[in-house]
Amino acid sequence: MPQRTVFFVSDQTGVTAETLGHSLLTQFDGLEFRPVTVPFVDSIDKIEQLAGRIDAVARDEGLRPIVFTSLVDERLRARLLACNALVLDFFEAFLAPLEQELATMSSHALGKPHRMADVATYNLRIEAINYAMAADDGHSTQHYSEADVILTGVSRSGKTPTCLYLALQYGIFAANYPLAEEDLESGLLPERLMVFKDRLYGLTISPQRLRQIRLERRSVGRYASAQQVSFELRAAERLYKRYNIPYMDTTHCSVEEIASTILSVTGIERRVRP
Amino acid sequence: MPQRTVFFVSDQTGVTAETLGHSLLTQFDGLEFRPVTVPFVDSIDKIEQLAGRIDAVARDEGLRPIVFTSLVDERLRARLLACNALVLDFFEAFLAPLEQELATMSSHALGKPHRMADVATYNLRIEAINYAMAADDGHSTQHYSEADVILTGVSRSGKTPTCLYLALQYGIFAANYPLAEEDLESGLLPERLMVFKDRLYGLTISPQRLRQIRLERRSVGRYASAQQVSFELRAAERLYKRYNIPYMDTTHCSVEEIASTILSVTGIERRVRP
Repeated sequence: MPQRTVFFVSDQTGVTAETLGHSLLTQFDGLEFRPVTVPFVDSIDKIEQLAGRIDAVARDEGLRPIVFTSLVDERLRARLLACNALVLDFFEAFLAPLEQELATMSSHALGKPHRMADVATYNLRIEAINYAMAADDGHSTQHYSEADVILTGVSRSGKTPTCLYLALQYGIFAANYPLAEEDLESGLLPERLMVFKDRLYGLTISPQRLRQIRLERRSVGRYASAQQVSFELRAAERLYKRYNIPYMDTTHCSVEEIASTILSVTGIERRVRP
Repeated sequence: MPQRTVFFVSDQTGVTAETLGHSLLTQFDGLEFRPVTVPFVDSIDKIEQLAGRIDAVARDEGLRPIVFTSLVDERLRARLLACNALVLDFFEAFLAPLEQELATMSSHALGKPHRMADVATYNLRIEAINYAMAADDGHSTQHYSEADVILTGVSRSGKTPTCLYLALQYGIFAANYPLAEEDLESGLLPERLMVFKDRLYGLTISPQRLRQIRLERRSVGRYASAQQVSFELRAAERLYKRYNIPYMDTTHCSVEEIASTILSVTGIERRVRP
């Protein structure tokens, strides 16, 4: 089956066009796409060059490309729409109904979407990131008093990336406590953690998935053995239940989904909006 | 001026609907919006509850809300469209033209967009995150041989968040080297860094902005003084030029934009796609 080329075009980073386009394309099972991201298209020169490239792909591959875009400038958008491609532009689709509803003309101003937040918000995000990094080892509890949430779980259940994502995306102060062998064996939380029990949120995962992840990482030794993985997960879940710690199964979840679920379940307020 | 309520509704995390909606709303200068994110709306019960909430807001505020959504399930979408609100659904807008172009019916399957990547990709992202965290201090160069890129710059120029974003979003191994007082004073890079000179990428920022950021963080002492900030930035830029290190000004850039610019300028291939 011929592979269709898909362009993600933006006058900014292209992340929105990618996310958007990607979630639409995953609705077409079995088709293969060749993704090309073209960020920072913000001048006539750049759009002309890109238009030439798109038309060349259409010609060479005998299949017109699909273009996902969020160009703000109407002239650039118009040039793109003249290409031999299916151009899906979400500004084109949504600005007009918004203008009508708000009875306001949009500013069509470039660079607005990802405009940098104010200094306080920026610093808050950085502080949250630094916090997540400092509070990642789990060896000391000195940082826990500042935590919005403390994620806990066995190795490779998703704690660290989720903490960082919570910090980057939402400015949340997320610490993490890796369950140690002795916690799992005794079935007891260490005394110094008990003060913060109400901030704990547990992660679990299916033994099959955890084994896959650990095997891929380190294929020998006890770490990825079926027996060890099962023991750790059973012990962790028993511990969550004993202490009434809310927890979730991350087996079928992306980092984004784990983070979003935690906010939704715990009611923790995000400190920063995108 | 009355504040319009905006709902971001998703059967997943809502991040796409938020990003999309946010970039559209920033085109309407001076209008104020009250954002409400409602993730994981994946059943008739949940959509009914949400529909009631949206209609109540319309009634209480005397202004119908705006709803950005990316619901895959047609029944849920239909229920939302019946609300007293401006509903902008990007599946509604884009699926039909895509189906026609691809001559394929979409699967309308829930949960596809953010389906977890395969194990190898997942581990790669995590390894990149762990790498960024381990290589963040700049004290040791032992990790630099594995780096795709080594960001350098003065304190608070954006190194750490950019490294983490590169890891989370693109699976890139990004280390960072904070320019030390002695580097800035001597105008020379330390010998141990010279082997990796070709992987260096410099960040700079305007003195005004850096001062604002540092003041907000620590308002006393030399750290945020006008003189110190100017000295550090001038010395850093001189150093980039001396060694032909490519660099960018992050003053008006978000972390996402810095990351995207670096990929675009250096040609480093992303290891992971969203």
